[in-house]
Amino acid sequence: MSATIEFWFEFASSYSYPAALRIEQAAQAGGVAVEWRPFLLGPIFRAQGYDSSPFVQYPAKGRYMWRDIERLCAQQGIAFRRPSSFPRTSVLGARLAAAYAGEPWVSGFVRALYRANFEHDRNIDAPEVVREVLAAAVPDAAARIDAAQAEPLKQRLRENTEQAQALGLFGAPSFRVGDALSGYELFWGNDRLDDALAWAQHRHPLQC
Amino acid sequence: MSATIEFWFEFASSYSYPAALRIEQAAQAGGVAVEWRPFLLGPIFRAQGYDSSPFVQYPAKGRYMWRDIERLCAQQGIAFRRPSSFPRTSVLGARLAAAYAGEPWVSGFVRALYRANFEHDRNIDAPEVVREVLAAAVPDAAARIDAAQAEPLKQRLRENTEQAQALGLFGAPSFRVGDALSGYELFWGNDRLDDALAWAQHRHPLQC
Repeated sequence: MSATIEFWFEFASSYSYPAALRIEQAAQAGGVAVEWRPFLLGPIFRAQGYDSSPFVQYPAKGRYMWRDIERLCAQQGIAFRRPSSFPRTSVLGARLAAAYAGEPWVSGFVRALYRANFEHDRNIDAPEVVREVLAAAVPDAAARIDAAQAEPLKQRLRENTEQAQALGLFGAPSFRVGDALSGYELFWGNDRLDDALAWAQHRHPLQC
Repeated sequence: MSATIEFWFEFASSYSYPAALRIEQAAQAGGVAVEWRPFLLGPIFRAQGYDSSPFVQYPAKGRYMWRDIERLCAQQGIAFRRPSSFPRTSVLGARLAAAYAGEPWVSGFVRALYRANFEHDRNIDAPEVVREVLAAAVPDAAARIDAAQAEPLKQRLRENTEQAQALGLFGAPSFRVGDALSGYELFWGNDRLDDALAWAQHRHPLQC
């Protein structure tokens, strides 16, 4: 049984972008499997009393974040252009990623949809943009979109979001590793991806 | 002229603790001088509409933070015990560190006061605790406390806090590097200390 990392992400989340682009390769290098767990931050922020992203509500924090993301992407060697609209979520994109999380094309679709927003400044909230990105990843895009918007698949994203809330997630990206026997560890933020992967591989390398 | 890193910290701040304990050694290894810039987060949080630390206002975030700090301290090999009271600021400690920021004993005093709170769970808001920690760092503690609580030295902490707000700081620890000619870069969070030091040494190693 190989080690697994749950990757909890929201398409609107700026710090999820660099994490999404590198997690699969980084995990494979360490023999760790990725579980793709898209969720919606909106209900979680609202439960905390936020009306929007903290980066919108606190302008100083928002200004800093954009510069920080720019530096991080440069370090990581990935393209970045500040989206003309933020936060730009993608309920359809998240539904698709949740519905088909186990299929091999999903990781490529997730990366492409993140790049549409954070590299090409496209409106990933528009169904036609999602359809186009999906069509490049898998042959039967139209049928998959129909299925993902109907029960039972539509329910998957709601389940993820409810589980995120139950797990105490409060932001994205978040990573969960471990198992029911030895316990789970939660890591929050793009900065913690490597720590989470190390934990997944060696269980408790950081234990006090 | 050697490179400099401004270290903006608040004694109550949990993530400032591991940064405070390692910054001097890390900076020296890279030939970078540390400017100690204590400030108060209270006025900055209040200006953002927070009544207390975000870790108190958002319990899920607070629970995560304590576990994360525990892991970070274990990684860094420093002792940590969760304080029985949080946030525990130290206006007197911050006044002293601001008033005597240029003196060679200040770095040791700052580390000792952080350890009093985050290793020994002592009430650093109590003047007698600060006096004891100061007395271990410098001979004429009583006279220095008197001077730090009177003008003109008392003003230094207020100036730092006002400058922090003017610079757009929104949390601690923060690091500022650069100069007036080529511009300044702001880094937020213990996670960014190494990036800030690299920037201070090479100016723009992360430039796009």
